[in-house]
Parts: sequence; structure tokens; C-alpha cells
Amino acid sequence: MQKLPKAVTRLINKFERLPGIGPKSAQRLVFYLLHNPDHELIDFAEKLTSLKKDTVMCETCHNVAEVTPCPVCTDETRDKTTMCIVEQPLDLLALERSDIFDGQYHVLHGSISPLNNVGPDQLYLRDVLQRLEGVEELILATNPTMEGEATALYITELIKRSNGDLGSIKITRIGHGLPIGADIEYADGVTLARALEGRREVGE
Amino acid sequence: MQKLPKAVTRLINKFERLPGIGPKSAQRLVFYLLHNPDHELIDFAEKLTSLKKDTVMCETCHNVAEVTPCPVCTDETRDKTTMCIVEQPLDLLALERSDIFDGQYHVLHGSISPLNNVGPDQLYLRDVLQRLEGVEELILATNPTMEGEATALYITELIKRSNGDLGSIKITRIGHGLPIGADIEYADGVTLARALEGRREVGE
Repeated sequence: MQKLPKAVTRLINKFERLPGIGPKSAQRLVFYLLHNPDHELIDFAEKLTSLKKDTVMCETCHNVAEVTPCPVCTDETRDKTTMCIVEQPLDLLALERSDIFDGQYHVLHGSISPLNNVGPDQLYLRDVLQRLEGVEELILATNPTMEGEATALYITELIKRSNGDLGSIKITRIGHGLPIGADIEYADGVTLARALEGRREVGE
Repeated sequence: MQKLPKAVTRLINKFERLPGIGPKSAQRLVFYLLHNPDHELIDFAEKLTSLKKDTVMCETCHNVAEVTPCPVCTDETRDKTTMCIVEQPLDLLALERSDIFDGQYHVLHGSISPLNNVGPDQLYLRDVLQRLEGVEELILATNPTMEGEATALYITELIKRSNGDLGSIKITRIGHGLPIGADIEYADGVTLARALEGRREVGE
């Protein structure tokens, strides 16, 4: 049987390891790239190698940025009294796009997931406590999944049990309910239950 | 609003250009790669640059290979009297996997598509005629799409009108009909019509 050239197979293997790309898509991508001019591939390769060279993790909030501390942490116009905890840098970006939050962030880079051997020590979680001075409200914006809920619960307990005057911080969880544009008819029971729990008075 | 580091955006742009990868997937892939160790990224980059360096197009059949002529063309045990014309190297691979064809191949690298400015001259089509000496059957295995059918028709005409003794070559088209495992109930009309046209006597 006719085999693929090694250079092709090796690149297919690389693409296959990426999330959401199966063997068939990987094959299609590589054959698409074969029709690209050489300089395109070299350019792609350069962008890959410079990805980590030209980015740093902000040592304050652990966001991905070009400088540390990142522009959000150094922005003096942002509210210092609210902090939002998110799982991933992409969550931070999604919140920034919504343009409604103007406080500080803290990126955990994951959520507590015992099944995947991720405990609190594998996350950027301990140093949240050191950042809470002056913070009046802490918004827990971890995902509404089992892992995200567990992480939110863990952080709440951590702050409540900590010594010092952290007890006065208001801890909130982002609202759960029906996403805008959704159909009640097709909503799952848990979401509907949360939407009812989270109901607000009209005009509030 | 918080912006992504340039190195991240640039790589997202690269991934976005690949077929079947939208802005959201590109973002997810790049953030996945950010969590990879440096040597993984460098390795990926090397595989990208060596893709075209370490592969050649077989000058006989235009398949993608490590050497030219490719292993299929130099394999003396393969049947020299049948030739199969396919659109892409991946089609050749799919046929090889089915393990039923043992003849020669010719890869066109596309199909006639006036809407995309692809005419016969943009394909590796003219040199098919030079390869037909000794060939008794030419199988047209272009896709059962508008473009594939047009290409098959064009090749048939090209051979019929050519001078010399090519007129004796048997030209066949791969069979159309219901794929194995399909459901007649859900088959489209054109496929069913082709399946009826292509019916064969039981026991044939």
C-alpha cells in the first residue's frame, strides 16, 4: 500500500494533538498547507516559535500579556475595589468584550478537578489572598460546571477561614439562568431551576 | 479594553486561514499551545518548515511523495494496463486504503471549476495523454460533484478527439449509487437515480 511521505505524516501527527482536530481534519490541513508557498510555511513556523517567547504571564493577575504587570493591572483608571476570578485568559477576554466590568482580574489557569489530578495547589489560587487588601467585592466567575462550582466553593471557604479582616469582603457568584436569545421550551431543568432562584423584581 | 498580546493574535490569524478553522477555534488552539512547553512549539515549527522541503511531487503521476518517481510509479508488480485519474493525493490514499486497485494513478490536483478560475490548463491534465501507451482501461475517479463530472467529461472528450490509437482505450467512471450502510429512505433523488442506472444483475 502507498504510504504518505514522512514529513507529511509527522505534521499530521502534530495537528492531531490539538484539541478538536481529528485525524481526517489534520490530514486535510496538511494537504492544504502543501499547496501553500514556502514562505507562508516559514512564516507560520516563526509565529509558532515566537508565541511563548513574546508573551509573558502577568505576575500579579496571571493573565497572558506582553509585559508584566499586564495593562489591566497597571491601569490606574480601573476600579481597585472589585476583583473577578476567572478560570482562563479567554474568560477574561470574553468579560472584557462585554465591556461591563471595570475592576481587577485574577486568572486561575484551571479549575479544581480531582479526576484530572488538578487540586488547589495546581492553580494560581493561594496568592489571591494576598491581593484582597482594599477589595470590597470578589466576583467568582468560574464556569457553571461541576469543576467551576467546586472551585468557587473552595475559594469562598478559603477566604472565610483565613485569619485577618478578609471576612468583610462581599463574595458574589456570576448569575446563572437562561442565556439571552434562548428558548424556555428547550432549557434544561437545572438551568431553569437556577433561573427561577435568580429571579429579580421587575424594575430592580 | 484589554487586548491580546501581538504574538497571540498573529498566530490566531495564521490558524484562522486554515480551512475549517474559524476565529473561535483558532483562539482555542493558540491558548492550548500557550500551555505547551517551548520544545513542543519548536518541534511543531520544524515539522511545518520541513513539510515542503522533504516532500516532492512525483513527476510522472503528480502524487505527493519522498522521491520522484514515486513508489507507486516504480513498483514493477503493479498493473501497467489500468490507470486511475483522481483529483487529489488524498483521493489516491483513500483508494489505496480500499486495497482493491493495483494499477497506475494520475493526480490532477484539482478539478475544472470555471467559477474558481480553474480550467484544464491549471490541472496536471495534458500529460495524461503521454502516459496512456499500453493502458487498456482508464478509470475516471474524480468526485461525483459538478466539477468532478465536468472534469471526467473533459478528459473523455480529450482522449476521443486525440490523434493516434488512443481510441481503443476503455474509459470508465467509478460507480455511483448508495454508499454501504446508507438508508434508501434518506437517500437523495439524484443518488437513487444513479443507483438504479448502475444496477447490476445478481450474481454478476
